[in-house]
Amino acid sequence: MNRIILIIIIGLFSQFAASQHALSEKYNLMPWPQEIQENNSKFSINEALTVAILGNDSKGRVQKATTKFLRRLADRTGVFINTGFPTKNNTASIKIDFQTVSDLTINQDESYNLDIKNKEVLIQAKTDVGALRALETLLQLTTYSNTENYFPGVTIQDTPRFVWRGLLIDVARHFQPVSVIKRNLDAMAAVKLNVFHWHLTDDQGFRVESNTYPKLQELASDGLYYTHAQIKDVVQYASDLGIRVIPEFDVPGHASAFLSAYPELGSKDNYTYSIERYAGVFDPTLNPIKEETYVFLEKLFTEIAPLFPDEYFHIGGDENEGKHWTESKEITAFKKKNNLKTNHDLQTFFNIRLEKILKKLDKKLMGWDEIMTPTMPKTAVIHSWRGTHEGLKSSTLIEAAKKGYSTVLSNGYYIDRMLSVKHHYTVDPIGDAVLTKAERKRILGAETTMWSELVTPLTIDSRIWPRTAAIAERYWSAKEVTDVDNMQRRLQKVSLQLEELGITHIRNKDVILRNMTKGKDITSLITLSNICEPLKVYSRNKGGTEYKSFSPFTLFADACVADAKDAVAFNKNVTQYLKDKNSDASFIINEYLAKWTENHKAFQKISNNSILQPLKPLSQNLAALSKSLQTSLQNKKMTKEEFSQCENYIKQLKEPFADTEVVIVAALQKLLLYCEAKYLVK
Amino acid sequence: MNRIILIIIIGLFSQFAASQHALSEKYNLMPWPQEIQENNSKFSINEALTVAILGNDSKGRVQKATTKFLRRLADRTGVFINTGFPTKNNTASIKIDFQTVSDLTINQDESYNLDIKNKEVLIQAKTDVGALRALETLLQLTTYSNTENYFPGVTIQDTPRFVWRGLLIDVARHFQPVSVIKRNLDAMAAVKLNVFHWHLTDDQGFRVESNTYPKLQELASDGLYYTHAQIKDVVQYASDLGIRVIPEFDVPGHASAFLSAYPELGSKDNYTYSIERYAGVFDPTLNPIKEETYVFLEKLFTEIAPLFPDEYFHIGGDENEGKHWTESKEITAFKKKNNLKTNHDLQTFFNIRLEKILKKLDKKLMGWDEIMTPTMPKTAVIHSWRGTHEGLKSSTLIEAAKKGYSTVLSNGYYIDRMLSVKHHYTVDPIGDAVLTKAERKRILGAETTMWSELVTPLTIDSRIWPRTAAIAERYWSAKEVTDVDNMQRRLQKVSLQLEELGITHIRNKDVILRNMTKGKDITSLITLSNICEPLKVYSRNKGGTEYKSFSPFTLFADACVADAKDAVAFNKNVTQYLKDKNSDASFIINEYLAKWTENHKAFQKISNNSILQPLKPLSQNLAALSKSLQTSLQNKKMTKEEFSQCENYIKQLKEPFADTEVVIVAALQKLLLYCEAKYLVK
Repeated sequence: MNRIILIIIIGLFSQFAASQHALSEKYNLMPWPQEIQENNSKFSINEALTVAILGNDSKGRVQKATTKFLRRLADRTGVFINTGFPTKNNTASIKIDFQTVSDLTINQDESYNLDIKNKEVLIQAKTDVGALRALETLLQLTTYSNTENYFPGVTIQDTPRFVWRGLLIDVARHFQPVSVIKRNLDAMAAVKLNVFHWHLTDDQGFRVESNTYPKLQELASDGLYYTHAQIKDVVQYASDLGIRVIPEFDVPGHASAFLSAYPELGSKDNYTYSIERYAGVFDPTLNPIKEETYVFLEKLFTEIAPLFPDEYFHIGGDENEGKHWTESKEITAFKKKNNLKTNHDLQTFFNIRLEKILKKLDKKLMGWDEIMTPTMPKTAVIHSWRGTHEGLKSSTLIEAAKKGYSTVLSNGYYIDRMLSVKHHYTVDPIGDAVLTKAERKRILGAETTMWSELVTPLTIDSRIWPRTAAIAERYWSAKEVTDVDNMQRRLQKVSLQLEELGITHIRNKDVILRNMTKGKDITSLITLSNICEPLKVYSRNKGGTEYKSFSPFTLFADACVADAKDAVAFNKNVTQYLKDKNSDASFIINEYLAKWTENHKAFQKISNNSILQPLKPLSQNLAALSKSLQTSLQNKKMTKEEFSQCENYIKQLKEPFADTEVVIVAALQKLLLYCEAKYLVK
Repeated sequence: MNRIILIIIIGLFSQFAASQHALSEKYNLMPWPQEIQENNSKFSINEALTVAILGNDSKGRVQKATTKFLRRLADRTGVFINTGFPTKNNTASIKIDFQTVSDLTINQDESYNLDIKNKEVLIQAKTDVGALRALETLLQLTTYSNTENYFPGVTIQDTPRFVWRGLLIDVARHFQPVSVIKRNLDAMAAVKLNVFHWHLTDDQGFRVESNTYPKLQELASDGLYYTHAQIKDVVQYASDLGIRVIPEFDVPGHASAFLSAYPELGSKDNYTYSIERYAGVFDPTLNPIKEETYVFLEKLFTEIAPLFPDEYFHIGGDENEGKHWTESKEITAFKKKNNLKTNHDLQTFFNIRLEKILKKLDKKLMGWDEIMTPTMPKTAVIHSWRGTHEGLKSSTLIEAAKKGYSTVLSNGYYIDRMLSVKHHYTVDPIGDAVLTKAERKRILGAETTMWSELVTPLTIDSRIWPRTAAIAERYWSAKEVTDVDNMQRRLQKVSLQLEELGITHIRNKDVILRNMTKGKDITSLITLSNICEPLKVYSRNKGGTEYKSFSPFTLFADACVADAKDAVAFNKNVTQYLKDKNSDASFIINEYLAKWTENHKAFQKISNNSILQPLKPLSQNLAALSKSLQTSLQNKKMTKEEFSQCENYIKQLKEPFADTEVVIVAALQKLLLYCEAKYLVK
């Protein structure tokens, strides 16, 4: 290519990217679309608004989505829309046109065009699912003024970067009722996620009814499982939203619950299997050398697979250390006889048998990345979860793609680790990897994982959202969309819209705090919870034995979330202040320090209650340190004694309180060091 | 009886009643038990707590209830109870014993004894359901101190006053998903209600799947209906809680939705039936002279009745004005031929046919009190709903009992009228009526009715609760338990416990307000909502045509509730102040007036939003009036001009704002008149 032309193209592209960025300061879209242009129009949302479906909506998806769209629009704006249902009338003000109805395979087309003019909104898509994605974009554009609500005039062309954009919900460690699943499906659709990975079995419970093997629900679920009717209902609900459902039956490990119902399939004789109440990796494992195991799994999967119309079927396959295999003479002999050198080889033997069973059922096998052994057929889909945290150099995703496997990434998107939204948002599935076209195509996408050891229906939403909305942008939007501040601004708005959909991440915080204060004023606890975050990366529940599955999850740590609100703001302002003492930050820091100083008085009024005792030192140290820092900064003076007291407060605040960490300590310490350097009385 | 003995007995009784009253200031029980004594013990709730089920729990009710009890106790107290499930071990610290398993008929025994000692809690009941009621009492007794949680040592003997204690939920006007029903069943059980009346059909929707007549769900439900599996699930869930389920299929009136699917059964030829979008009483009525009508209903009921194991089956029968009957020549001729003088006679003809159909299905017919015509057989159960509001002298309850009908009262318990808890609490089902033993026995009990014209899943809980808890006390406790202040104190605690069970009445208020401010600070709206109540007695939605079923119910009025919090407190203090100027009330009134004066500034910061415009005059007038009153009371001086301005503010505040009324206006007016009398500058 001519060098000058190249420079012009790059120049045009940069200009285009810059204008996209400016628009992303203006419109609260998430995920950010591939292309957006302003067109100087404005579509008023008023009583006369009508919607027409022009495509052949044979599965009824657009009918349902449009009806919900009309309810959500009315609820959000307070506008009494006269016509509460879509029509087929070509004179409607919002027209939805699409060419075909999606069969929800991996290759479904989700692209759409959205054109908002003064008197008309036009949605065009290849498929009904594309039309659904467009409706979500349109809803996000709802804007209000003093006198009206409107859609701003923009023209959007949009299509996802990855075809597989998932959320895993683990319903084994803590069961999640259908209503929890449904509201999260609604939220997924709102941010254009399209795969619900349903982790249905684990050591702590087998959550699916079986008519063939009823002891699974009778003995392995504590009565907490989904009936076939409920599964069909959820799968239909997901399909209506253009979301595929991938079931996971985790074998051969993670089998404590399974084997408590059918111990004869275990690898260890005379072993008492029982539903696991703790968290962690456990020994109970299916016996891969017994023919009965395969007969059982074939019958079970033959019964259950038809409930899940999707082509992909996840068999888990993770974290099997094979301890019981090594301990068994028969299994050791079998390995020798069949030239299976390691337990991994034996598991591959097991996996290959499973793949054949699933093939008969027209299912493609998918499994966690431990299944990627040299002899594993390339037809398996590799779910990459391990990474640096598990002792690897990087995730297994690129390796899998290069070896010829289709693959999906979860490493980097483990939201149960309670890390910041920034952390997850800045993980790109592909990164700098250099890939051939074929390799790139094998990277299907990624999945956010909500493991549920420490979450219940009361708290699960605040662990999934709003972070998952930002991660959804990573999966859908162009790789170049990476501005964290901009994302955080948009995320605030999206977070509120998720609440409107029924997500309880905001409202349930106060529920927990009201329970803790027994109805007394919760303001002081809100203040504390806004600077504390739950312990991260599994340091809450050390060794998996601090909490049982039935321990209380209505504690202070459960009211706290990642990205503690005041901490984010305070830490930013301290950084700003240390750069420029005369900035606004000085005022804001002073306000926060005053608030924390005062807070302890309010806390003392409500704290005559055993559940609040672990918070007393937190509240007290924070107040004392804040007061000392505030005074020193104001008076520009700090005595040695004050300094050493402050050091002591900080030392104590660095310790966990009630399973949380105070995430402003580093900033407070910076302020203290500043005081030491500038104001210490020698 | 010897007069002296009588006096002694009365004396002892008064003493007993007085001690019960003193205890009700101490323990937050609701409904208040029949007998409670203190025994100077204290049972510590700690990790070692265990529960044993000693009775033969063949239906598993106590197992499920106890498991839930253990979760709720852990969640409430934060105690990590080691044993998460009940055992059969006689050494457990809480022992639950009962003799038989209830078949959930109307005669089920729900009595129980509860004895809390230092090291042991003993529950004894005739039936498993009695044991469930005891567990709820025990949970309500949970008490905390600085160092521990405990059950205080009391001994309780308890049994309900009425056998039928119900809550009706109308799922026709606004559909309520299974999760809404389930959480309300949990709450019902917590306050010992035992009948869920499921109003399943009405002009606005037919909410039950039929395989025989599938057009009912296809054309008459907007896709919002319960499948058979869902109904079975709900009925089982209710049974597990000791709650009977009474289905209502409202015929022959309230039939718009029904007839939109099967117009051939209507009373008017060539009439276009459609699902009704408004509220009110409508004309579409089943045709009682067509044999096909009865064939249809028999087939339908034969299909559906088995889903509902309860003996009682509600056929509605209300508000049929028979307009279409009068307009039909054939029907008029039929009436003449069969000597049916009025439309009511014709409806009785219809009802008697229905009773025969239901008898074949082993069901007892129940209907609204319009069915009580002279020829109606005494086997029917009369559901008394009309009263003074409908132009009668009193409710039809006593009349029905005296005529020989079994009967249930709902008049006085229409919580959709948005009246105060005090209003409903002071309605006694029997009152001063003098009844024979047989007549008294025919008064089965009462039902609270949640008609859903103006409620959605977002708001329904705040309309049902907490008022229904106080009404439940009316149905369960002794007639003498009537102290309103005492009830209100206990209700506050119960209200929080309902939130813990999943009821959303508190948390969803902020959700609505956050939607209105689009995420901006909601404090000023909370302040306004705490002195405003939704318009009462159907004056919101005048004529039933202001709101359609799909209009927004996310408005200010939907965030407001009956018994507005600050209003209750302020009004009390004004009364107190006018009695005694030197009381604490003076200080409190001043605080409120200051708060309302300041509030408008905060409101102005958030109000650039069309949805908030209707509140502007409210906020403004309230601030101006509060300021003027505050100044005048402080300075003991009010000019004529100020007085006339204040009069004007009050005049404006008397008008509805955004479908709410400001329920402190009368108190403010009293303060103004006081200022006029005392401080007016002449």
